[in-house]
Amino acid sequence: MSKRQMIIGMHLGNGYGALAEAWRMPGVDPRAYTSFDAKVRQAQAAERGKFQFLFLPDGPHAAGGDIRYEPSGFNLDVMMTLAAVARGTERIGMVATGSTTFNEAFNLARHFKALDIMNHGRTGWNAVTSASPEVAANYGQRIPSSADRYGRAHEMIQIVQALWGSWGKDAWVADPETGEYAKDEEIAPINLGGEFVASRGPLYIPPSEQGQPVIFHAGGPSPNALSLAGRYASGFIAAAFTIEEARAQRRAFREATERAGRDPDEIKFFPGLMTTIAKDKRAALDRRITLTGRMFPQRAMYLQQMLGVRIDPARLDDPLSPEQLSRAHAAGGDPRAVRALEVARDGWSLRDVLAHGVIDYQPVVVGPVTEVADHMQEWFEAEAADGFWVIPDVYEGGLDAFVDGVVPILQERGLFHLDYEGTTLRDHLGARPQYGVDARVTG
Amino acid sequence: MSKRQMIIGMHLGNGYGALAEAWRMPGVDPRAYTSFDAKVRQAQAAERGKFQFLFLPDGPHAAGGDIRYEPSGFNLDVMMTLAAVARGTERIGMVATGSTTFNEAFNLARHFKALDIMNHGRTGWNAVTSASPEVAANYGQRIPSSADRYGRAHEMIQIVQALWGSWGKDAWVADPETGEYAKDEEIAPINLGGEFVASRGPLYIPPSEQGQPVIFHAGGPSPNALSLAGRYASGFIAAAFTIEEARAQRRAFREATERAGRDPDEIKFFPGLMTTIAKDKRAALDRRITLTGRMFPQRAMYLQQMLGVRIDPARLDDPLSPEQLSRAHAAGGDPRAVRALEVARDGWSLRDVLAHGVIDYQPVVVGPVTEVADHMQEWFEAEAADGFWVIPDVYEGGLDAFVDGVVPILQERGLFHLDYEGTTLRDHLGARPQYGVDARVTG
Ligand SMILES: Cc1cc2nc3c(=O)[nH]c(=O)nc-3n(C[C@H](O)[C@H](O)[C@H](O)COP(=O)(O)O)c2cc1C
Ligand SMILES: Cc1cc2nc3c(=O)[nH]c(=O)nc-3n(C[C@H](O)[C@H](O)[C@H](O)COP(=O)(O)O)c2cc1C
Repeated sequence: MSKRQMIIGMHLGNGYGALAEAWRMPGVDPRAYTSFDAKVRQAQAAERGKFQFLFLPDGPHAAGGDIRYEPSGFNLDVMMTLAAVARGTERIGMVATGSTTFNEAFNLARHFKALDIMNHGRTGWNAVTSASPEVAANYGQRIPSSADRYGRAHEMIQIVQALWGSWGKDAWVADPETGEYAKDEEIAPINLGGEFVASRGPLYIPPSEQGQPVIFHAGGPSPNALSLAGRYASGFIAAAFTIEEARAQRRAFREATERAGRDPDEIKFFPGLMTTIAKDKRAALDRRITLTGRMFPQRAMYLQQMLGVRIDPARLDDPLSPEQLSRAHAAGGDPRAVRALEVARDGWSLRDVLAHGVIDYQPVVVGPVTEVADHMQEWFEAEAADGFWVIPDVYEGGLDAFVDGVVPILQERGLFHLDYEGTTLRDHLGARPQYGVDARVTG
Repeated sequence: MSKRQMIIGMHLGNGYGALAEAWRMPGVDPRAYTSFDAKVRQAQAAERGKFQFLFLPDGPHAAGGDIRYEPSGFNLDVMMTLAAVARGTERIGMVATGSTTFNEAFNLARHFKALDIMNHGRTGWNAVTSASPEVAANYGQRIPSSADRYGRAHEMIQIVQALWGSWGKDAWVADPETGEYAKDEEIAPINLGGEFVASRGPLYIPPSEQGQPVIFHAGGPSPNALSLAGRYASGFIAAAFTIEEARAQRRAFREATERAGRDPDEIKFFPGLMTTIAKDKRAALDRRITLTGRMFPQRAMYLQQMLGVRIDPARLDDPLSPEQLSRAHAAGGDPRAVRALEVARDGWSLRDVLAHGVIDYQPVVVGPVTEVADHMQEWFEAEAADGFWVIPDVYEGGLDAFVDGVVPILQERGLFHLDYEGTTLRDHLGARPQYGVDARVTG
């Protein structure tokens, strides 16, 4: 029996990397935000590392801090970027967010299915509701209630999948000899209409090599998210700070999948992992100080809350005093506090505590390649993950360090495949094929 | 003073060419419908011919006849196709239809502006209302009244252009030395809201090489279309069957443009032209019989109405008899009847009359390259056109015949440029640059 192996996706955001000052780093194109070439190169590097997919989150709105000093975290346009990436890569899958709240079903179905044709069956749709008022404002609207958002999300996914399946597996003939172009009886309107979304169809796009795109979901384990992802998702993009939290989330999504009548192995669970890699711990911490140091005074205030002791932002070069350490505790219920306390107790200066990434949106490993591989192995073997979505600190440099440093270690340990097993995203995930009309007719 | 020269665009539809049996022709890839490579090759051929732009019409719905025998006339997905074309060409402009009726302003603005970044300022948006119930059904809606459609179209164009202009010309700095990423004061929300559409913005995309995409409109000279195109459009895609009709339409759009306070030369008028090219008339007629002959029995019935004489669809090899010719007249007010009568009087068999393309959606030239060049020269010099959107019968073969045969003749006659004068679509059209916030502030 073959050993269970992990699946790796790479975050692809604004083109620089995930950290505030990434765009200024040596070796990074400061104009990567509008450079499709840069994104294609980054995708090619991930493909060199045999990553199974790219993940492009999206608002659409401006994500991030102060535009005077740092770019929006999101991609210029996820569909246009993926079209470029599709034309510049051969095997890697590509998963983009498409809001179920602020898209017309027919438009979204068409863009994603066309991409799936273009990349020969390597597309996934991260179907999430939009919960941010900033996104709603771009559409001149307000954010609906959770019930309405998720009600619409169910209809969107059903209608989009039906549009994707408008053409049966063998509907497209295109035989110049006989003059037969398509089998009319295998192309059907969908005529679906719910409370929020409706479409008649059909969508005039034949099946791709994987039939149709794969459904992903991203978020936390809210009851609505559990039932949506449990019903439709083949991949779940998660945020979890500890092994325990990730195991609990993974278990909850597997149970939700089972409740929806599916095999729990059909949903793959991917917690995030940010990396800052250098030859040793000290060099990696220094790299991260360069990349995020500007935020440290502000983050020191969070750290004070997390540890329940007063911190002087002017004295970040000192470690916590023995007196402070005796009073410090994981305060305020933030799951990151436990790790922050651990690092502080190891005697690092406060600057280095922050440089460990104890306050960030995802778990962070700052260190040499083996430390990254160890983290992944530990989470994977504890059944806290089926794989990861990896967020390199900087694209190109920081990504290359992962691809050329961490991947070979995982492969040596038998934890990661040596090459792609197939050509489609469904192949990469082990998700079953999904076609249209004829499948519906013949069951 | 330099001589006025024509501007040429190429229709890019389903990837085969405009005629029913194009997909079956030798040299045509029968799977071109889903082949982005095929579309890139076609765009490259048009670029070899120094065409100023590609025109991709769109529903989105299935256009055309019986899917058992012929493909939908529209493109799989105009934006995904243009992304591929953007990456595979250097100079040619690209204009795609985006419905003002069934798109969210923010989504449409983002896709088109991202494309304009990708192709370095070569994008145009054909902003048309959707008038077909088949399109509405794909969105689970009905077609609104003309007043509501055009009311929304005005708001869409204004809001989309404002989103495109969210970033001032010099807002984006990205200087790694100083750490300045962008000038906050030159990036502004738009806060526009009308009766139909609203958006707060900003759109997080800096200006392209041409500032922002160029507005086109396509249709006929309805009062609503005149005032929309007169106000915003730099290019107008038209259908006109005779020089007189085209001159009248062109004049009407120029007047509408003047009424909107603009220079009438700011709107370029492009009637359509379908071509079937071969070494001589007979070979060209035969080629067109191969390409459209299946429709002839049905078209013979139209011809009967157009000429006001009984036609026997079983005897298409005969010309009209002297007795029929004496009674034949341009009947029923169809502008195409005049030309049909002319061709019938020349003594062609009824099959050949139909093969002249007298019943089609656009004027048709079936003949050798000089006949095509003569048609274009005549219309252009009669001020019936500022150029044409050309619809080759078959892509690749039929397109190559135009590029390598007609273009050199037009160039020799001084009617068409020898090379691109600039790099952007605005350059190609002579349209003035258009930027954002700073222009609004400084007037
Ligand atoms: C790892 C992760 C990735 C996410 N990616 C996106 C995204 O790309 N776009 C988006 O609008 N929301 C994204 N979200 C937000 C979630 O989809 C969701 O709105 C949020 O978790 C609130 O969920 P709830 O409404 O079920 O409580 C993401 C959340 C997480 C944890
Ligand atoms: C040459 C030409 C091209 C057109 N292209 C499109 C198109 O790509 N998409 C579309 O929905 N309508 C297209 N139309 C339809 C027009 O935009 C418009 O809906 C129609 O002319 C009715 O206009 P009215 O509502 O002003 O009467 C086209 C019409 C013409 C004549």
